[in-house]
Amino acid sequence: MSRKFNQNYTYNPKKDLSSSEIAKGVLNADTNILSQAITLSESKNKEDRSLVYSALSKLPLNKHKSFKIGVTGSPGVGKSTFIESFGKHLSALGISVAVLTVDPSSNLNGGSILGDKTRMEELSNLPNVFIRPSPSKGELGGVTEQSYESILLCEKAGFDVIIVETVGVGQSETHVKHLVDFFLLLILAGAGDELQGIKRGIMELADGILITKSDGENKINAKNAKKNYQNAIHLFPNKENKWTPKVQTCSSIENKGILEIWELIKDFKSACTENKWINRNRTKQDVFWFNQKLNQFIKEDFFSNSNTLNKVKQIEKDVKEKKLDPFTAAAKIFEDEP
Amino acid sequence: MSRKFNQNYTYNPKKDLSSSEIAKGVLNADTNILSQAITLSESKNKEDRSLVYSALSKLPLNKHKSFKIGVTGSPGVGKSTFIESFGKHLSALGISVAVLTVDPSSNLNGGSILGDKTRMEELSNLPNVFIRPSPSKGELGGVTEQSYESILLCEKAGFDVIIVETVGVGQSETHVKHLVDFFLLLILAGAGDELQGIKRGIMELADGILITKSDGENKINAKNAKKNYQNAIHLFPNKENKWTPKVQTCSSIENKGILEIWELIKDFKSACTENKWINRNRTKQDVFWFNQKLNQFIKEDFFSNSNTLNKVKQIEKDVKEKKLDPFTAAAKIFEDEP
Repeated sequence: MSRKFNQNYTYNPKKDLSSSEIAKGVLNADTNILSQAITLSESKNKEDRSLVYSALSKLPLNKHKSFKIGVTGSPGVGKSTFIESFGKHLSALGISVAVLTVDPSSNLNGGSILGDKTRMEELSNLPNVFIRPSPSKGELGGVTEQSYESILLCEKAGFDVIIVETVGVGQSETHVKHLVDFFLLLILAGAGDELQGIKRGIMELADGILITKSDGENKINAKNAKKNYQNAIHLFPNKENKWTPKVQTCSSIENKGILEIWELIKDFKSACTENKWINRNRTKQDVFWFNQKLNQFIKEDFFSNSNTLNKVKQIEKDVKEKKLDPFTAAAKIFEDEP
Repeated sequence: MSRKFNQNYTYNPKKDLSSSEIAKGVLNADTNILSQAITLSESKNKEDRSLVYSALSKLPLNKHKSFKIGVTGSPGVGKSTFIESFGKHLSALGISVAVLTVDPSSNLNGGSILGDKTRMEELSNLPNVFIRPSPSKGELGGVTEQSYESILLCEKAGFDVIIVETVGVGQSETHVKHLVDFFLLLILAGAGDELQGIKRGIMELADGILITKSDGENKINAKNAKKNYQNAIHLFPNKENKWTPKVQTCSSIENKGILEIWELIKDFKSACTENKWINRNRTKQDVFWFNQKLNQFIKEDFFSNSNTLNKVKQIEKDVKEKKLDPFTAAAKIFEDEP
């Protein structure tokens, strides 16, 4: 049974939430508090982040595990439209969904801003659906170092499915594989790979490829694209999860292929639960994030001293002005002051 | 005028070199000591590395700057053969060359081991040539974190040209762009891109593409490949250095095209010196390595405490056994012991 989420709050950010209030809110799946917690975790201010860190440490160890789906594709491929249809479908099945999406208003890669906003609102009004747009930092196409915290918070809140959207520019996808169980690549029929800037590495990551906008005159294109990608998939090396990626078509307008993609994901889930890959992969991801976070904390701890910070800035300046070579400069940071 | 290098030593590693002896040896371009210093810099033993770090800090700031060339290509493309011919050519011109190459005997990617060894010996007997094979760690195709130190040591020894070889598997090339001024991609005519595993990203990095083994029956293939790559180059985005990559053919057996590639590199050097890109790029690289090394030292400093190290190992075990989530686990490292 899926949990009920208290979504019918007016958005009213309380700036002075304590870490206990955050912990309690997240545990109760209060989407208002969840949203604030994500905002705090994305803050540049270390104190804001510490508040979330402290809340996270108060939450019990996860028993419930959300199934995490990465959705990627070039701008214009129809990611928002797909996520809307897909989210509606899951919601109708009584499955709770959290969507971590790129905020198009801050998206350097363009996209139909007003259109996206409207769709987001429609989907977000459905029961058991939580949508959280994050500002795109440009470089990583929406997934940032902080996405791990956002996902962890949604997981602790008990969502059945978490959808993580990225924009298919390359770097973010190799990053997102440390975050998700299933990776879905959206492709627009008719536009060549080159045109869409889809890199081979991204195709190799995909567990499923979905040809979007398979409607009207575009149907024949979509069918051809499906065949081509199906052939292309066999040229790729076998995946660690032993899963052979599937190619499907969909039309969000005609509402076709949405049901089928959820069936595909369920097939994947049961195959990769049976061969224990999902579990193994999650352990690997956990170790990865443990090391990532440890490195982050080590650095933050080091730079928390303002004297150290000033010293680093001064010495970096000397490097830029070629007064010190990089190596000697880095070693100098650890020298005691005279 | 090029410096003279004292190469006619019998290789006789003195294990107890002091950091002053290393510094002096490197400064005098004693290739025997230089080779030992690189070995020490590649050591897993922190004390060995510290010895080199300390020697580096004793060396004066670089006035002389070596011109650094990255050479990449799939196994079998003829990298060793090319580097041999190219090195001989430079040596004949009185230009001193250091070659940091992948040791084929430890190369997971295969390659003609005996052939390579023989070639290496022939080239290494030439005046003003220093060859240093490094064990390929497999993953990065020969370029490791330590390559920076190796290059810095060769630079301090005053070589005119430093050639850095990688095996074209992808990751190493994005790494190597932080190390070199000019990036040369070797391609074997007749073998398709897919076959050679050359990724688009690598082609985008290339400042020059050299079609190898353009001799005998293969000449016509090489000519076609040249045309194809010349066309392909125009599809790539403009490079930051404003240089349009050039495609050439060569035959190491017939000794053709070697002179031309050095002319090409000289053209690049003068164009990118004039538009100040080389200087800007080197400053960027310096800042990059300053931060890399700083991060390395921060981590090493943190883990130098054996209590900390044990704690991390224990907590990582808890993460693997799912007793702690990664986030709480990382934060726990910074908690004071009860």
